[in-house]
Amino acid sequence: MQLQTPYLLFIGHATDPLSIKMAKSAADWSPEKCIGELRSEGCTVTTGLHAMDLNEGVAAGARSLVLGFANSGGHLDEEWLPMIHQAIDAGLDIISGLHDRLTSYPELVSAAQAKGVRLLDIRHPTKRLKTGKGYRRAGKRLLTVGTDCSVGKMYTSLSLTREMQQRGLDVDFRATGQSGILVAGEGIAVDCVVADFIAGAVEELAPANNADHWDVIEGQGSLAHPAFAGVSLGLLHGAQPDALVVCHALGRSSMRAIDNRPLPSLAETIAVNEQMARVTNPDAKVIGVAVNTSSVSEADALAYCREVETELGLPCVDAIRHGVSALVDRLEEI
Amino acid sequence: MQLQTPYLLFIGHATDPLSIKMAKSAADWSPEKCIGELRSEGCTVTTGLHAMDLNEGVAAGARSLVLGFANSGGHLDEEWLPMIHQAIDAGLDIISGLHDRLTSYPELVSAAQAKGVRLLDIRHPTKRLKTGKGYRRAGKRLLTVGTDCSVGKMYTSLSLTREMQQRGLDVDFRATGQSGILVAGEGIAVDCVVADFIAGAVEELAPANNADHWDVIEGQGSLAHPAFAGVSLGLLHGAQPDALVVCHALGRSSMRAIDNRPLPSLAETIAVNEQMARVTNPDAKVIGVAVNTSSVSEADALAYCREVETELGLPCVDAIRHGVSALVDRLEEI
Repeated sequence: MQLQTPYLLFIGHATDPLSIKMAKSAADWSPEKCIGELRSEGCTVTTGLHAMDLNEGVAAGARSLVLGFANSGGHLDEEWLPMIHQAIDAGLDIISGLHDRLTSYPELVSAAQAKGVRLLDIRHPTKRLKTGKGYRRAGKRLLTVGTDCSVGKMYTSLSLTREMQQRGLDVDFRATGQSGILVAGEGIAVDCVVADFIAGAVEELAPANNADHWDVIEGQGSLAHPAFAGVSLGLLHGAQPDALVVCHALGRSSMRAIDNRPLPSLAETIAVNEQMARVTNPDAKVIGVAVNTSSVSEADALAYCREVETELGLPCVDAIRHGVSALVDRLEEI
Repeated sequence: MQLQTPYLLFIGHATDPLSIKMAKSAADWSPEKCIGELRSEGCTVTTGLHAMDLNEGVAAGARSLVLGFANSGGHLDEEWLPMIHQAIDAGLDIISGLHDRLTSYPELVSAAQAKGVRLLDIRHPTKRLKTGKGYRRAGKRLLTVGTDCSVGKMYTSLSLTREMQQRGLDVDFRATGQSGILVAGEGIAVDCVVADFIAGAVEELAPANNADHWDVIEGQGSLAHPAFAGVSLGLLHGAQPDALVVCHALGRSSMRAIDNRPLPSLAETIAVNEQMARVTNPDAKVIGVAVNTSSVSEADALAYCREVETELGLPCVDAIRHGVSALVDRLEEI
């Protein structure tokens, strides 16, 4: 599945910055693949890219319309069907990361066939998966885990990969969600596989490799999240990680899309992830913490990270503000 | 989805008794719905029902052919397609609990349409699911959990349900796998839902109820199983159980379908299940142990159960040999 670029990033009338994660990820990590953003009335957030309407996007050379936003159920809001039809008529591929499939709409399928464009449901696995085995495999793997959903696991994973590449390490980023797939061009969205195959999908995504090779695997959800912990645990077992990095977002009062549920502490998150990881890797170890500190000042961010380092004895950074070299330093010691 | 009975239980050329769990479950728990078993050459196991060929089954009144066996990937072995075609031609519905869908074979679909019979993939959810929330809900729930797959969680759940019914308690069995669905006539196979919806599916399967009502929810897999722990954790969180019963099989040297992986101890299994259950129910408590002791003598089984009771301070029974009244006694105390 080759994704046609450049992308025109459609963000609907989103008002929650976390809901346009997919569009924002592509804009931040693959800006060379993006031509601009397409917004509807009422939209209060932005990818930071130049806003344009559909015709302007097509004129500027867009090859794909990306549905770059999501609700927590991953449903396709049918109010967008006319826009999708217009994009098809304009000759664009449509890329969706929703649970609902574009291909489940016969009228979209026939319109796409008539125009010779593709409907790409990138969250849906395209190959037959196997159940996991948990047998120890060669190569080294790092997995990002979290205190919650949407706390920066993908950004941290991409930052780590970039830093490791710059140091000349042999490393691959392994995408496990639709945003990562859009950035990397490949991967498996583990939250969308049939539940029996979560761990097996990750064993396939990050297979045995050279002894010195690192796979940096993008984490999903949180072991403490009442909706998604099953995905997180299957991913943890399938990843068989040597190293874990705990990701956290400062200033969040409740877990994503759940009322009145405080996030677990970093210490609890470290303990439960190391404990559960040992099912497939007895040596799994948290090597550092990455915090999204965007809700506080630069000074407060630094103070917070120093405090965490003192409390936990682990490097703690904001991947965006401070970079991740402290984490990679620690990684090179193991 | 109404399943047509009586069933003719097809067990192929199975040689592993655990692989015909689905057929055996129906024979044991709904014998009035079963007309006999259909075996192929080389089959060394049995449901205990009268063996008959397809024509004999049809003559005896069978209305559905049940594919009553499975490999761990849940794949449909195409060597059985001719047999399925014969059953369709004979006017039977086909019931499958495999991951692979009967309806993905166009030639089966057209044959079934021509004969006016149905292809029923009972493992696949038929309604749109939501993500879980973990909000406390009314009613009481019991979940069976295990040291491994295939250790008797469904048998224990059905035994508990029957015993509770006999005591006049308000109770429902909630099926979470294809075998349980075949017995109960309804349910959701949680290992076959899209991974994001595991917990949400269980919230829907066992919704809020009267304060004194019990749902007895069939468990799946094990938190210690490298392939299936994600399913088990999502099920645990969605069930929000007040009471847990740990199931175990005596004399098993390695976890199901995995080489060289000893089962966790009962004490470890209790600890990790209570710990992880607290994400959605801080009061979750293991109230007893159910062991499949069929590999040892009656005397050794009793001695083992007494030993467990002394060690753990919990009632321990073989549901088949001893009944589950000791477990329900403990349940009525909470």
